[in-house]
Amino acid sequence: MRKINPDKIGVKTQTLKGFRDFLPKEAKKRQWLINILRSVFESYGFEPLETPALEYEEVLLGKYGDEGDKLMYRFEDNGKRKVVLRYDQTVPLARVAAQYQNDLPIPFKRYQIQNVWRAENTQKGRYREFIQCDADIIGSSSPLADAEILKLVLDIYKTLGLSVTIKINDSENFKNLNKKYVAAIDKLEKIGESEVLSEMIDKGMASEDAKKALKELQEKKETETIKTILSNLKRMGGKINKISYEPALARGLDYYTGMIFETVAQGSSGSLCSGGRFDKLIGLFSGNDIPAVGFGLGFDRTIEALEEQNLLPENNISSKVLVTIFSQDLKEKSLGVYSFLRNANLNCEIYLDENAPFPKQLKYADKKGIPYVLIIGPNEVKENKVTIKNLKTGQQKTITQDEILNII
Amino acid sequence: MRKINPDKIGVKTQTLKGFRDFLPKEAKKRQWLINILRSVFESYGFEPLETPALEYEEVLLGKYGDEGDKLMYRFEDNGKRKVVLRYDQTVPLARVAAQYQNDLPIPFKRYQIQNVWRAENTQKGRYREFIQCDADIIGSSSPLADAEILKLVLDIYKTLGLSVTIKINDSENFKNLNKKYVAAIDKLEKIGESEVLSEMIDKGMASEDAKKALKELQEKKETETIKTILSNLKRMGGKINKISYEPALARGLDYYTGMIFETVAQGSSGSLCSGGRFDKLIGLFSGNDIPAVGFGLGFDRTIEALEEQNLLPENNISSKVLVTIFSQDLKEKSLGVYSFLRNANLNCEIYLDENAPFPKQLKYADKKGIPYVLIIGPNEVKENKVTIKNLKTGQQKTITQDEILNII
Repeated sequence: MRKINPDKIGVKTQTLKGFRDFLPKEAKKRQWLINILRSVFESYGFEPLETPALEYEEVLLGKYGDEGDKLMYRFEDNGKRKVVLRYDQTVPLARVAAQYQNDLPIPFKRYQIQNVWRAENTQKGRYREFIQCDADIIGSSSPLADAEILKLVLDIYKTLGLSVTIKINDSENFKNLNKKYVAAIDKLEKIGESEVLSEMIDKGMASEDAKKALKELQEKKETETIKTILSNLKRMGGKINKISYEPALARGLDYYTGMIFETVAQGSSGSLCSGGRFDKLIGLFSGNDIPAVGFGLGFDRTIEALEEQNLLPENNISSKVLVTIFSQDLKEKSLGVYSFLRNANLNCEIYLDENAPFPKQLKYADKKGIPYVLIIGPNEVKENKVTIKNLKTGQQKTITQDEILNII
Repeated sequence: MRKINPDKIGVKTQTLKGFRDFLPKEAKKRQWLINILRSVFESYGFEPLETPALEYEEVLLGKYGDEGDKLMYRFEDNGKRKVVLRYDQTVPLARVAAQYQNDLPIPFKRYQIQNVWRAENTQKGRYREFIQCDADIIGSSSPLADAEILKLVLDIYKTLGLSVTIKINDSENFKNLNKKYVAAIDKLEKIGESEVLSEMIDKGMASEDAKKALKELQEKKETETIKTILSNLKRMGGKINKISYEPALARGLDYYTGMIFETVAQGSSGSLCSGGRFDKLIGLFSGNDIPAVGFGLGFDRTIEALEEQNLLPENNISSKVLVTIFSQDLKEKSLGVYSFLRNANLNCEIYLDENAPFPKQLKYADKKGIPYVLIIGPNEVKENKVTIKNLKTGQQKTITQDEILNII
């Protein structure tokens, strides 16, 4: 590619604010994670669902509260339909549940890994386009379903090699507390006990009552629901010691109707993956409640956690070797070796310019992280051999064509 | 899930016009194809690129001609930015090439499999959201690159088991013909020779001249460019007998500057995959030309062709067996078997409702295409065995837990 100067042209060469390009290195990491997620989901019988990027405004509007309506990408299409870009995957799931009710198995176990779009404040380090990764079981109110969800989460992070704890609670524990106090208690880990108490007091509770309410909550024993879920989980082979019961854990109670949980990596406090039971939401497009339990896995956060702990595959390059071209004259020799390697089903490349100087070809291999290059020059041709160079060690040796396959 | 009646609720439960939901069965087929495409692309050193769903209007507007501007999904975002949904993957690639020019290897071989959005006329059976699947090499003007593109296409369809022919031509063959006549000739296969001739005459060519021009074109021998590409392809191990030189093949000449091709399945005329060399397009955001060669694979068309020839995996279900629950009392026994199977890394499910009657559990397995169910009733428990039922044959036998792994 020749040197180009985008500024000269007066055409914008910018990624839209809040959006990201994923060049190969990043795109591959993300694809690697998606492949693992898919395979673990499918091993438990969760099946993929895809819904369109655009929905009728009527389907989404009002479903996520005032903030949601404000952050949605809404517009009128060319046919004057009011449409909205996918904002989450749960409301589309609710639409699908109503629309295809006779076609779906019961319970319906689906996973969904698609982008959503939200006009977030980018100064908070948020993106306006990001992957959501959800797995839900709809149509079962059995604690077996809750247990399976926990087992699935444990298995995902085990497969990824990330050591996690699942904090679990029962929304039942909050039934006698006003929502505004629950919102304060939700911040316990972030802001600490005294700050939580003063927030409860600010919101109208007497000081002594606040202390008492918080203490009572923190001392609550496992509910029958939690006991049954954990007993099921244990019998399913789930590692119970990865679960921590936290009676003050409160998340999105408007939404959850039973078990709630979040997943944290060791030595970190942010939640990687959270969910619970939400029996009132999927029936949104019907009059009836449809029991549901599931979770959303934070894709970007999980990538970050894997990156921090060096758990992403380091050399995710698919090409094992680059066949270089010594000269226009010897191009055919290189093509012959390339053809041999491809017939042997080896992932390999040939440098796509017969006139490029050798250093340029080396730079290409280096930039792509290709571990080996092959050189077929006049000496190699004379001996009917090839020289293989390991780009990491710099070592090279001259071998027969067949021997390449032993080395790579 | 309970019976629900969406009409009662007065909320729209409709997929947006021109858009599609992909329920698990379809979603899996598509994922299967995507996985194969990715693996073949990567085996040739093509790497994934992802660009955002939204771009600044300035980046896309005017790049696809008047029709493109009309069919784009354009709107103003909440920050009053004029934005456009991705309309194709080539203009974003051109933006990326300019924006990250120092970070990319040269040549840059990328593939991109993302949705695009076009406000097409749905009456023509077109969708407004569909996957584009492109692979391009930018930064190499060598015929080696053209040859590799052809080899890649042959390898993709070979891997898919679909027998195809690549029709190839050189846009050079049209250099002395006015575009309007080329557009007529482009329809040769569709409308036949006499219709093409009358269209040429209508457009202003004398009858004798039209006949002569068409005949001359049809008799043109392979150009030097085509000869070199095919010679490279042959030396790379590509099957030359799958390539058919067709000097009257004309596609999108505004765009292509050398080799052009389309790929047809045996016994079919629609193109599954088409492309060519386009040395003037990628430099769109720069002043300089950047040589490029590549193709777009018709994802939906390829799925259809595979479906027609029964080449899609029939039983793409991941769960091999459903562990049923005989009764609340015996739940623990089923959980024990389930735990055993999961420890053995078998993809399996347990029915997530301990109170469901057996026929309901069977129906679940049937609907999901799970091939086996396990029954652990009082007799089985007494004998410390399980009954395995093959849902396809209806046959069942009672075996030990360990023997399950031999059968499945």
